[in-house]
Amino acid sequence: MYKVSILSIGDELCIGQTVNTNAAWMAQQLINTGAEIVTHSTIRDGKREISSEIDRLSKFSDLILVTGGLGPTHDDITKAVLVEYFNDELILNEKVLENLKEFYKKRKRKFLDRHKQQAMVPKSCIVLDNSVGTAPGMKFVKDSFTLVSMPGVPREMQALMQAHIIPSVKETMQKNNNKVQIYRTLKTVGIPESKLAENIGDLDFLGSSSLAFLPSYLGVKLRLGTVAESFEKGNKVLDKLEKHIRSKVEEFIVSNSEEELSKIVSDKLKEMNITIATAESCTGGMLGEYLTKEAGASNYLLGGLITYSNESKINLLDINENLIEKHGAVSEYTAKNMARNVRRKFASHVGLSITGISGPDGGSDEKPVGTVWIGYSDHNHSFAKRFIFSNDREVNRKLSVGQTLALLLSGLKKQK
Amino acid sequence: MYKVSILSIGDELCIGQTVNTNAAWMAQQLINTGAEIVTHSTIRDGKREISSEIDRLSKFSDLILVTGGLGPTHDDITKAVLVEYFNDELILNEKVLENLKEFYKKRKRKFLDRHKQQAMVPKSCIVLDNSVGTAPGMKFVKDSFTLVSMPGVPREMQALMQAHIIPSVKETMQKNNNKVQIYRTLKTVGIPESKLAENIGDLDFLGSSSLAFLPSYLGVKLRLGTVAESFEKGNKVLDKLEKHIRSKVEEFIVSNSEEELSKIVSDKLKEMNITIATAESCTGGMLGEYLTKEAGASNYLLGGLITYSNESKINLLDINENLIEKHGAVSEYTAKNMARNVRRKFASHVGLSITGISGPDGGSDEKPVGTVWIGYSDHNHSFAKRFIFSNDREVNRKLSVGQTLALLLSGLKKQK
Repeated sequence: MYKVSILSIGDELCIGQTVNTNAAWMAQQLINTGAEIVTHSTIRDGKREISSEIDRLSKFSDLILVTGGLGPTHDDITKAVLVEYFNDELILNEKVLENLKEFYKKRKRKFLDRHKQQAMVPKSCIVLDNSVGTAPGMKFVKDSFTLVSMPGVPREMQALMQAHIIPSVKETMQKNNNKVQIYRTLKTVGIPESKLAENIGDLDFLGSSSLAFLPSYLGVKLRLGTVAESFEKGNKVLDKLEKHIRSKVEEFIVSNSEEELSKIVSDKLKEMNITIATAESCTGGMLGEYLTKEAGASNYLLGGLITYSNESKINLLDINENLIEKHGAVSEYTAKNMARNVRRKFASHVGLSITGISGPDGGSDEKPVGTVWIGYSDHNHSFAKRFIFSNDREVNRKLSVGQTLALLLSGLKKQK
Repeated sequence: MYKVSILSIGDELCIGQTVNTNAAWMAQQLINTGAEIVTHSTIRDGKREISSEIDRLSKFSDLILVTGGLGPTHDDITKAVLVEYFNDELILNEKVLENLKEFYKKRKRKFLDRHKQQAMVPKSCIVLDNSVGTAPGMKFVKDSFTLVSMPGVPREMQALMQAHIIPSVKETMQKNNNKVQIYRTLKTVGIPESKLAENIGDLDFLGSSSLAFLPSYLGVKLRLGTVAESFEKGNKVLDKLEKHIRSKVEEFIVSNSEEELSKIVSDKLKEMNITIATAESCTGGMLGEYLTKEAGASNYLLGGLITYSNESKINLLDINENLIEKHGAVSEYTAKNMARNVRRKFASHVGLSITGISGPDGGSDEKPVGTVWIGYSDHNHSFAKRFIFSNDREVNRKLSVGQTLALLLSGLKKQK
């Protein structure tokens, strides 16, 4: 196996002021190469800390990916530490200097003498072009391991990973005939973890492969994993496992890739030429926000209403004042009519609605906190479905959006 | 210094399928105790991996906080590894068993024999009640270090941290007269990092303390840090530094706590009895979603419109069809009128609007991708302000919400 460690450097990460999304992103990209990710670690911007951590990781890693500490300010010390660690010296790299000057010119900013410092790189490293920022990536190829140092800015790290690291890891994997660790994820919506497990049943079909259940707000992911001689052989194993799982829970699977649900929904709506409109109460716009995550959302989202108050439900959505009084704002009646009326108002194909008690207050015995009615309406039918989620406000809001998308996808299937 | 390490166990973390928000959350809580967070590390659910990582961390940590691997399924092996590591044995804990039975009873679920397994705990550990889940926390107090094992479910970990860990770390810090590492964060909105640095000017006033600039979508945080003999002494130092910074950039500081901006905005609106309404285009509901994050949002948010299409701007917000044609949907005219008209439509005190080109398509030379007009309207005045953010769709949407909140807070100040 080709072993990779991820080292994140930065006080802001160590003290929790910034969530380390970089490490997860890098790992996600790497698992598609078949490499094994051994560990992530986070340390402070300290000279001693950085050297000793590199020392440790180099003992069991083929590749160490380092992010952070390459900026231009006083607390960015990674480059200096690397120079010392590898007994190296800094030299001016003309190509990087040229890129830098170009970078500033494009942005109509003055190139100052102190900016030159970013073009000083360790003599022994391979310089990796940073197409979106000022600090280049630096690759040190040693006998027993390779270390790559990248900026901590997500956009810059991502560009370097995609242009340089991932292709080179893939190449190495092929050349060395390494065993590969591969994964495949089946994304499900609209079914709880326990029911999914029940439907799949006996796990003997897995053999030496693995299956993990990963619940999220937007559905449960099924992660299959296997170790194989090659990608091809591993994929054949996964194909078989996927087929078995599909035979049990096909109707709930919306994808077998790491694609975001927003992309899946967006692509489907575009492909089917379906337009939608939303009416949200307790989610306050979260559904609309999610539906506009992807470029080209104007092809399907005509608009939405955030009807947080009863008055706005009555005035903007023509919900009957007496009936909302009678049934309550969180009710089948209200959700169904919100969905139907917002569809009519925007003249869209589909109307979606969410009205619920997200908490922490507002619950009752009959309608506890976490009670959410979700409405769906198209030209064939309008209905609403009740959910009882949790005690947590933010969790309830996110689960509401997830279940609404599940209703939408199942509605679209029937329209085909 | 009292040194803490955070160890996260789980394949899903290692391969990047789950972002490690737990480690950041724990670190954030810990820095308020004055403890020093030395490192975070993430490893897979492997027996050898877990023992050797505990071995390593115990060499330089006073406290090791471990999360993950305590669930009831086959891949949860942390408890078994700890029993072996500490040469311990599992015994049935009657109190945990009682809690478990109560837990299932409350949720109207059957208590099965296999659930008993969660009540088996290592003999030598101090059991920490888990008030929100089934796996208790386990605290092992050894000569040179303490280790606490907690479930990886965020809600459960957080409850254990707040009820047990944080109070006990605070107590230890006081008893041992440890030096404390303390931080204070000044939250600013509506001013870019570079301008903030320019206004603050010379950093000599810091002495041996530190100042970090942490830009986020919702504004730039200024993080002051210092090491002191005691909390009291350290706070005095930070008071002085805060005073100096306030003398330079007071008008942009909205808080000196780790409080979320949503809470600050929510509290201010409630306190001033101000109601608002929103009209969003490119953000698709993100502003409404953010404004309804906090409980009691119905006190101030009357509602909102997601006017993603031109038609919806014309029909729902009475934007003049000829003028939107003339000026464009992304223009001062449109933003200003969206804000004013949504205020009138909902009869709120304040109207807020966002209309922009979030990208990746739709830009032009005159209005490049990232161009966003943000509108503000109250009974005194209505205006719109232009921003040019970035090339990234999601970044543009988030920055738009951040700047809208800055406009809102500055508008509220003037209403006082």
